[in-house]
Amino acid sequence: MSPSQRKSFSLAELTQGLEVKIIGDSNSIIYGISTIQQARLGQIAFLVNPLYKRYLTDTQASAVILSAEDAKDCTTTALVCHDPYYIYSRIAAFFDDKPRPLAGIHPSAVIGQGCQIDSSASIGANCVIGNHVVISANAVISAGCVIGEYCEIGEASCLDANVTLYHKITLSKRVTIASGTVIGSDGFGIAKHQGRWHKVPQLGRVIIEEDVEIGANCTIDRGAIEDTVIEKGSKLDNLIQVGHNVKIGRHTAIAGCVGIAGSTTIGNDCLVGGGTGFAGHITIADNVVITGMTAVSKSIREPDIYSSGVGGLLKNKEWRKNSARLHRLDHLVQRIKTLEAALEKLTERKET
Amino acid sequence: MSPSQRKSFSLAELTQGLEVKIIGDSNSIIYGISTIQQARLGQIAFLVNPLYKRYLTDTQASAVILSAEDAKDCTTTALVCHDPYYIYSRIAAFFDDKPRPLAGIHPSAVIGQGCQIDSSASIGANCVIGNHVVISANAVISAGCVIGEYCEIGEASCLDANVTLYHKITLSKRVTIASGTVIGSDGFGIAKHQGRWHKVPQLGRVIIEEDVEIGANCTIDRGAIEDTVIEKGSKLDNLIQVGHNVKIGRHTAIAGCVGIAGSTTIGNDCLVGGGTGFAGHITIADNVVITGMTAVSKSIREPDIYSSGVGGLLKNKEWRKNSARLHRLDHLVQRIKTLEAALEKLTERKET
Amino acid sequence: MSPSQRKSFSLAELTQGLEVKIIGDSNSIIYGISTIQQARLGQIAFLVNPLYKRYLTDTQASAVILSAEDAKDCTTTALVCHDPYYIYSRIAAFFDDKPRPLAGIHPSAVIGQGCQIDSSASIGANCVIGNHVVISANAVISAGCVIGEYCEIGEASCLDANVTLYHKITLSKRVTIASGTVIGSDGFGIAKHQGRWHKVPQLGRVIIEEDVEIGANCTIDRGAIEDTVIEKGSKLDNLIQVGHNVKIGRHTAIAGCVGIAGSTTIGNDCLVGGGTGFAGHITIADNVVITGMTAVSKSIREPDIYSSGVGGLLKNKEWRKNSARLHRLDHLVQRIKTLEAALEKLTERKET
Repeated sequence: MSPSQRKSFSLAELTQGLEVKIIGDSNSIIYGISTIQQARLGQIAFLVNPLYKRYLTDTQASAVILSAEDAKDCTTTALVCHDPYYIYSRIAAFFDDKPRPLAGIHPSAVIGQGCQIDSSASIGANCVIGNHVVISANAVISAGCVIGEYCEIGEASCLDANVTLYHKITLSKRVTIASGTVIGSDGFGIAKHQGRWHKVPQLGRVIIEEDVEIGANCTIDRGAIEDTVIEKGSKLDNLIQVGHNVKIGRHTAIAGCVGIAGSTTIGNDCLVGGGTGFAGHITIADNVVITGMTAVSKSIREPDIYSSGVGGLLKNKEWRKNSARLHRLDHLVQRIKTLEAALEKLTERKET
Repeated sequence: MSPSQRKSFSLAELTQGLEVKIIGDSNSIIYGISTIQQARLGQIAFLVNPLYKRYLTDTQASAVILSAEDAKDCTTTALVCHDPYYIYSRIAAFFDDKPRPLAGIHPSAVIGQGCQIDSSASIGANCVIGNHVVISANAVISAGCVIGEYCEIGEASCLDANVTLYHKITLSKRVTIASGTVIGSDGFGIAKHQGRWHKVPQLGRVIIEEDVEIGANCTIDRGAIEDTVIEKGSKLDNLIQVGHNVKIGRHTAIAGCVGIAGSTTIGNDCLVGGGTGFAGHITIADNVVITGMTAVSKSIREPDIYSSGVGGLLKNKEWRKNSARLHRLDHLVQRIKTLEAALEKLTERKET
Repeated sequence: MSPSQRKSFSLAELTQGLEVKIIGDSNSIIYGISTIQQARLGQIAFLVNPLYKRYLTDTQASAVILSAEDAKDCTTTALVCHDPYYIYSRIAAFFDDKPRPLAGIHPSAVIGQGCQIDSSASIGANCVIGNHVVISANAVISAGCVIGEYCEIGEASCLDANVTLYHKITLSKRVTIASGTVIGSDGFGIAKHQGRWHKVPQLGRVIIEEDVEIGANCTIDRGAIEDTVIEKGSKLDNLIQVGHNVKIGRHTAIAGCVGIAGSTTIGNDCLVGGGTGFAGHITIADNVVITGMTAVSKSIREPDIYSSGVGGLLKNKEWRKNSARLHRLDHLVQRIKTLEAALEKLTERKET
């Protein structure tokens, strides 16, 4: 799957080793990726979202990755498979032009004492690596990263530019961290004494397991006593706050702008919508789905889809009316009570 | 309008070329800006918000920028105009002491191969510029920025300190990016296959058109296939997340802490309040206003003001009661049904 | 309280100067901190949250910090005190292994002209310090920080790695700023004129008073005319946005992902839950508590606990039903009106 500097590939090459049935010419040459509606000759597209099926008959794509069901309506070469989005992700990797930095340490990087840096690792310009840091084979530390002492970066892990790791942070293999993310800052531990806040030292670490991906400008606090842990295969989008002592299970996906307060545990295989907030000290079961902008105020014990608040986008005028009425629900309940009493009286009178 | 090192100007100088009528002495010397309530002799203030009109009669300001209507009550020199806040912005520019860096490349900057950097551009200390980057006339790249390969920075664009641009990002003219912002990180594209998430390569770019301003610690993801685009004249505040493939139209203003999920399109001349979240794959028309902390869960087809949820700030005790009652609405409906049935029965009996 | 390189201490040493009564052997040697449920011999734990009291009888800790009431059930050495969490914070400081950098200026740092840097201060690798910056005794500027001209950093203040300060920012004594935070970026001041937004110059500064702590990846905008101010002893968590001209009072604690719009004033000794948003130009009294994810849409005049929206986490199916019903409240009110009219008619008929 490793992309070469080549720009074009036959369908046979692109699908080698993948569970794909090609209906059409497997020698067709593909030089790029496009959307089904905008593809031109020589490009490959995919179809997953039914909204886009209407473009299938007219697409100019040289090939389309799609399901057996959709393949019936395909007028160009079809790459039929069970999981078109996954197959697309594998084929798209051939056209990924993300720069791959050279191995070695840039002369402008500042390296601490007692570090073990594998010769196949890449340390970018102006990086600052603290003492006793271990950087494994094929790891990439991009320009401007600062890595605290005693950190360990696993094989083939990649820190994009301007990432900050505090001391004693452990990243396992194939971990990816996007720019601006901060890992290992002190958790928000403060104790009030005589009217003033006092800092509670944060003595734990952060452990990031293999194949975790964290987006840009996130903040992952170190544990207060034990460690903050993100287990293998979980994926975090941008601008996410993970408080101290949080545990995120395996293969959980969390969209952008989510905040997770301290000491909360999220299970395996969860899906969390953007803008959601989690209270502290709660536990979320495995396989839970939470819709966007939900306030998760308590533990969730069984797998299901959860939401909070009141849905519905309204014109502001309507919304003001509705909100006002909601705040007068008390009054409504009172009117119903009055009605019930009056009716009972009437009925009694009738029956006596 | 270019501010000099001078610290004082006559009203005539300050208003040259602006549509302002000076009622009073246009030779008055102004040495600074202040609020209408705190201004002292020699300072200029402005009046826009009616809440502050009560300070007008007593202000010690040497001049006040205001509308014709407010000018009637002005006891000091009046700068009468149609748009006092805009005129203020032009006059305030004379007193802006934001440092303007010198042209040239700081010796500590690391510059890649094949770059074209205009001699009037400024590259700050410890910047890292990738290969084949183009930086145009009068552009400013402040200290600690990292710019990926093949980026293009237009004329007079300004990156504040510690901004990160991934590869192949295009900024047009007069684009301003505040510190800590990350542009071009991978979008959150993941495909589940056999119980594990697989990264979907993000092959698009980010295009930022002229006169766009982006605040601090924002994240703007690159497109998955096509590009993420912010059109000319739009203004983004701090800590905003813009997902992959998002299009933001012209002259749209977005307040802080907003999240825009992938593939959403926002129109021209929109106003978006702080803390708002947009679902993915939706379209917002031109001239739409969205109030703060709204969950924009579906497309908006016509210009209006929109909100979601239930407004109103309550004491927590009251709020708990209200929330509980809302969750028993079902019960309320049941009681009304019972009443209706009973009443119908009574009425029938009466009429038979 | 200054932690040494030693790894173990007697209980007598750990509690010297603290109001703690030791019930048990004050010569016990403690070599680390743990939670009450996981502690082993030689470790010290604390008990504050009643949820954890059940672990007290079986704990393997060599000592537990707790209240007089809980001490009754303690089977190991008890450190009895009024405020166990505060006492814990003091004892934990002995075991804090956060690296303390050496005094002096790293040779890779770039220092401007006319700076005053105390010889006991530490300036990390690849820092960029602008002209005329003052850095006081024992201050720490960690690697990769960029500090604008005319900033002042007070005694024993500490900037973690990759912090950005714009020009003319003032930090008092013992201020702590975590990585990625940006202080002094331009406020979101824009004026519309002839269909286009124009930038309003931001001429104020940011003043951070003593003992303030700010988390990671926050953004604190400079004032438009006057200054943005955070008063002494206040504590801010991560990913918080503070708009221009905001004033935050003394000893106020603000959890993560909070946004405060421009010109808002927050009082002393407030507690703000995570994900909360404040409208602009409002005033919050002292001693106010705001629960998480609240929309603070108006001023708060008296101390109490405040919330907004509709609480309650529901299964999505239930939530959809509820939301739909709320949007039909109008219809419910109509039905009650009809009932009232019918009942009145019936009653009248009866009484005539």
